[in-house]
Amino acid sequence: MQTHSTFLPPERTLMGPGPSDVNPRILNAIARPTVGHLDPLFIELMDATKQLLQYAFKTENALTMPISAPGSAGMEACFVNLVEPGDKVLVCINGVFGNRMVENVERCGGQAIVIKNDWGKQTDLNAVEDALKKEADIKVLAFVHAETSTGVRNDAKRLCELAKQYDCLSIVDAVTSLGGIELDVDGWGIDAIYSGSQKCLSCVPGISPVSFSDRAVHVIQNRKTKVQSWFLDMNLIVGYWGKGAKRAYHHTAPVNSMYAFYEALLILKEEGLENAWQRHQTGHNELVAGLEGLGLSLAVDAEYRLPQLNVVNIPDGVNDAEVRARLLNDFNLEIGAGLGEFAGKVWRIGLMGYACKPRNIDHCLTSLQKVLK
Amino acid sequence: MQTHSTFLPPERTLMGPGPSDVNPRILNAIARPTVGHLDPLFIELMDATKQLLQYAFKTENALTMPISAPGSAGMEACFVNLVEPGDKVLVCINGVFGNRMVENVERCGGQAIVIKNDWGKQTDLNAVEDALKKEADIKVLAFVHAETSTGVRNDAKRLCELAKQYDCLSIVDAVTSLGGIELDVDGWGIDAIYSGSQKCLSCVPGISPVSFSDRAVHVIQNRKTKVQSWFLDMNLIVGYWGKGAKRAYHHTAPVNSMYAFYEALLILKEEGLENAWQRHQTGHNELVAGLEGLGLSLAVDAEYRLPQLNVVNIPDGVNDAEVRARLLNDFNLEIGAGLGEFAGKVWRIGLMGYACKPRNIDHCLTSLQKVLK
Repeated sequence: MQTHSTFLPPERTLMGPGPSDVNPRILNAIARPTVGHLDPLFIELMDATKQLLQYAFKTENALTMPISAPGSAGMEACFVNLVEPGDKVLVCINGVFGNRMVENVERCGGQAIVIKNDWGKQTDLNAVEDALKKEADIKVLAFVHAETSTGVRNDAKRLCELAKQYDCLSIVDAVTSLGGIELDVDGWGIDAIYSGSQKCLSCVPGISPVSFSDRAVHVIQNRKTKVQSWFLDMNLIVGYWGKGAKRAYHHTAPVNSMYAFYEALLILKEEGLENAWQRHQTGHNELVAGLEGLGLSLAVDAEYRLPQLNVVNIPDGVNDAEVRARLLNDFNLEIGAGLGEFAGKVWRIGLMGYACKPRNIDHCLTSLQKVLK
Repeated sequence: MQTHSTFLPPERTLMGPGPSDVNPRILNAIARPTVGHLDPLFIELMDATKQLLQYAFKTENALTMPISAPGSAGMEACFVNLVEPGDKVLVCINGVFGNRMVENVERCGGQAIVIKNDWGKQTDLNAVEDALKKEADIKVLAFVHAETSTGVRNDAKRLCELAKQYDCLSIVDAVTSLGGIELDVDGWGIDAIYSGSQKCLSCVPGISPVSFSDRAVHVIQNRKTKVQSWFLDMNLIVGYWGKGAKRAYHHTAPVNSMYAFYEALLILKEEGLENAWQRHQTGHNELVAGLEGLGLSLAVDAEYRLPQLNVVNIPDGVNDAEVRARLLNDFNLEIGAGLGEFAGKVWRIGLMGYACKPRNIDHCLTSLQKVLK
């Protein structure tokens, strides 16, 4: 075995699809002394975290908490708790994460009915409504609010209205939307939602906040079968994260990551949710003006573009990997590659949370200009 | 909503069943700048982590890596990948975590055949062999090496020999054993093993290292059904953690927790595995002598006691909760309560990793003496 030494990472500027630049306050918080996961002071922190998370999601849902694992586990938590064998789930696909939802439905023994729209386009509301009309017993409508693979914002508000109208539950992927664009869990009537710590909350990766409406909780409590995942069974997790001073041990929470996650929510609260949304929009406008000034174009219509994730067409004759490698090695700047159908065709430039600020935008535009010239 | 401010945890001495005291080097490492989860330097860190983890587990298994979630997810990773509907699994239960294994088997659609032994006693090897003889087609033998709920060491070496002899795979819970007592994955022929970051590795909680033998990998690659968990499907995870420079995105790794976990493994390597085992034994002997000097007795026979988790009988007339609260509030010392059948009957005093040192042992004995007098 080779000799190993401590890992001293370079100071990257993270403007890919996440993780985004982490606020130094959060890195300070994560290094504080570890306490036990059943320590009364940690239980208080859990309660405070739930309150701040309710603020961030705009919800009064009692079952609002962080899952002790990354966003893909948050996604799985929503599906394994709400989907039972034989259940029909209408899944809207216009990127990688819609496909992953289908994987989840099928692994729960559910039947996925799929609405596909082109990468870079919005989910077609009419097609969704037609499908809901045609199939009488669809249990869940599932879609991605902010498609991290394409930079598209889907119309979450209207999609949730359709779910309500056709008596379905809604499962919403808000991994990249939370904290970056308008999101209103109670106002839009979302039944189950998951997000990630490492996008517009600018926290370290590894935590996935979720929220379930009372209607969703009722469904979970009245399942015919056990939730197939012990680790993600909300019936068990509520014993640890639920109300009351007496908390039952379920798993050992990632205590230090929870310090970090709480600090991230606190920073969002201090700024104000609407101010954070506005800051992302302002930063986006500035970045787009700069990119267009460099002769670059965006892959998504302005009408439904995500401000926090800018998907840029790679000009003909430009070597994708070489540009990203030069940005990383010469400028310590990370931007994202294209995923799936967009691999090799686009770059994904994130402006998420703490990373969405003039210093980063200037650095990104100047570095890109130098590398592309 | 009430006003929130940053969380400043007290400096506890963690001598419960885990998390254990975290080495300050690890807290320093976790706060270093976040890099992307596909950054070439992070990929190098992943490779180095796998090497150090192979050292800690004493294995050359290629599929040796940390799962991005706590130990209960590591347990689930082993079961969902190896157990398919209808498979028979022999589970040895002599504490909480054996029960949790049964939950996992059943949620995979498997059939759990159970060997029960009393809490505080070892798993009876004869009973295991009888069951293996009786049922011809048992696929997996599953047991807990170090039962965190009772302080008992099960005879992992002999149990794995039995598994081999009767042509079963073995799944071993090494959450509390790794780094604390002898464990030899290749020498004992273990097929699937999981552990936790927050016990004898003295890392922050939230990461679960696993290792699968080539025989187990073959079984996983030749399943009849898809693994029910997308997040924990090893067929997908190897694309990110596997060999080669090209890594496919699966989920976003908890980058900073991985810095911490790597540092924890590095510390173990520097000390040397056998030295770490010896240090736990020495600390245990000292603690036991002190406890007996206070008139306290241990709940487990010396022959199969865990040095890293000392289960102490609560004397008659002593108020369990009050003692633990006073230790916590007056001395910043956390010891563990009893779980399950042992609730109210025992305390669990951990001597895990960085927490296993004379300073802590002295503090624990002196504080207990003051509180009990």
